[in-house]
Amino acid sequence: MKTKTILLASRPKGLPTNEQFQFDTLDLPAPAAGQVLLKTRYVSVDPYMRGRMNEGKSYIAPFTVGEPMAGGAVAEVVESQNPALPVGSLVVGNLPWQEYILSDGKGLNPVPADKAPISYFLGLLGMPGLTAYFGLLDICQPRAGETVVVSGAAGAVGMVVGQLAKIQGARVIGTAGSDEKVAYLKQLGFDEAINYKTTPDIAQALAAAAPAGVDCYFDNVGGPITDAVYDLLNKHARIALCGQISSYNDTEVPVGPRPESKLLKTSAKLQGFIVGDYYSRWPEGVQKLTEWYSQGKLQFEETITEGFDQIPAAFLGLFKGENTGKAIVKVA
Amino acid sequence: MKTKTILLASRPKGLPTNEQFQFDTLDLPAPAAGQVLLKTRYVSVDPYMRGRMNEGKSYIAPFTVGEPMAGGAVAEVVESQNPALPVGSLVVGNLPWQEYILSDGKGLNPVPADKAPISYFLGLLGMPGLTAYFGLLDICQPRAGETVVVSGAAGAVGMVVGQLAKIQGARVIGTAGSDEKVAYLKQLGFDEAINYKTTPDIAQALAAAAPAGVDCYFDNVGGPITDAVYDLLNKHARIALCGQISSYNDTEVPVGPRPESKLLKTSAKLQGFIVGDYYSRWPEGVQKLTEWYSQGKLQFEETITEGFDQIPAAFLGLFKGENTGKAIVKVA
Repeated sequence: MKTKTILLASRPKGLPTNEQFQFDTLDLPAPAAGQVLLKTRYVSVDPYMRGRMNEGKSYIAPFTVGEPMAGGAVAEVVESQNPALPVGSLVVGNLPWQEYILSDGKGLNPVPADKAPISYFLGLLGMPGLTAYFGLLDICQPRAGETVVVSGAAGAVGMVVGQLAKIQGARVIGTAGSDEKVAYLKQLGFDEAINYKTTPDIAQALAAAAPAGVDCYFDNVGGPITDAVYDLLNKHARIALCGQISSYNDTEVPVGPRPESKLLKTSAKLQGFIVGDYYSRWPEGVQKLTEWYSQGKLQFEETITEGFDQIPAAFLGLFKGENTGKAIVKVA
Repeated sequence: MKTKTILLASRPKGLPTNEQFQFDTLDLPAPAAGQVLLKTRYVSVDPYMRGRMNEGKSYIAPFTVGEPMAGGAVAEVVESQNPALPVGSLVVGNLPWQEYILSDGKGLNPVPADKAPISYFLGLLGMPGLTAYFGLLDICQPRAGETVVVSGAAGAVGMVVGQLAKIQGARVIGTAGSDEKVAYLKQLGFDEAINYKTTPDIAQALAAAAPAGVDCYFDNVGGPITDAVYDLLNKHARIALCGQISSYNDTEVPVGPRPESKLLKTSAKLQGFIVGDYYSRWPEGVQKLTEWYSQGKLQFEETITEGFDQIPAAFLGLFKGENTGKAIVKVA
């Protein structure tokens, strides 16, 4: 059979455009013994993928030019030569951007559709939710009454971070890029939410929102918001360094005020991490997130784009701040 | 009786000069019950004191203009109305820059003169040694075969860091500011030592010295050396942020390449600290350092200036890199 696929056509310089993506058609043989044919249901687009479009070593291998893009996806088994994965099974895994995929089943995990909408296994109960869980609870370890700042708070990771911090009893301040996102964060229970695009002085606004200083900072963004938070750190502050979306499209190394003296004065910890660092603890994280979700303590939001052909547009939209919560493409 | 003292005359802008120090004479009454009269024997001058000369909150309260400068010193009890501190006792503590000091004994610790030269309780077996001990062994936790970089390696803290890292079985690279210091570091057992002042390309030199990348970085200096080390970090690198002497005299916030993306890619940890964070574990640290010293596994070097009046000059010399190892003033 044939399947549509989306290849990396070229490596972007700066902000990616549609030119980096090439639609193509692949021939897929029928599944051999042990194999299954998957039909893609939901595709996740995530900021970290921008890093994989570059050449060179990062925490994850780069995409190959001329090969399919890939990432988190939920898919359904539509043909099976593998008794462990009968037709109708729903799975989640790192999959190529294709409508149909031939798989030997390795690296696929079952999707318990009775627990939550199946797309949530790409969000709240998947990589972004786990990123929030381990970054906040393992690195930041907020205590009741402490102040937590989250940048990119209306994104898939940030919105979970803020709610988890509230569950811990912390005061939570989020930054986001539109009044709608700010209103949504307030509705989620954030104590303060700041529209960094319209606030004339982000440093002043953060200082006003954090009169007792900042104990924990979960950084998805970097740049001037981060500079301002560093000035507010309390003694023994903890910073989970999760993303730097403000600089992912920079073509030169971004320059800014050196943070070291501020981190030194406060005996602060700054820990870079990716969710893969916690791979062995994922089951614990999924279990806790599922529990809080089933208890109504965690809400989740998705921005769903429809149609396989819209995957590149949904991805490019991440860098324009188009999504509130998880950016997802519904394929079928 | 009368004693000489050195007051903070004014707060420096940028590099301090002799103008910031004012010699004065104080009247001291005879010791009352519970008090002792101390005669200062050795005074420690340390880079961190520069921060205390500024106004404003840091990890330690600022010095007061018109009041004596103060810091680590070893002193001898010469008159006593305190049975716990008989005449002839040697003590170490945070003391004003005075030839004689009236003290109630609080905050003073005994100096076991049988263990090491008494000035070492301001260096190897005092604050700098403990700073090296906790920063390296608690934050960096180097393992055998890993690569450790130490900036400011020929200073009182750095030279201990490098030797402790060798005791742990690590490969050790130090940076220092003269060929004499580099030669000294080699003699101490450093695997590589780089004169950052004469090396045309510090990034290239560090990369050549660390072909397997950098697992641990103990930073006393900051600035371009640190930028270069960040580019060499291995996955899960640990950085102990101890000092930033390259910027202590800056009058504006120093600017440089933002480090966050580099720390994120490597899941690196950067931990600011001061030795006071480990106050409860000081006895452990002193015991281990004393043990290694008595076994001949730790060497120590001092640059000793003679005379109370030379304290300001010895302090100012720190920022010209005049000292190898601990800068000490021998007063009496």
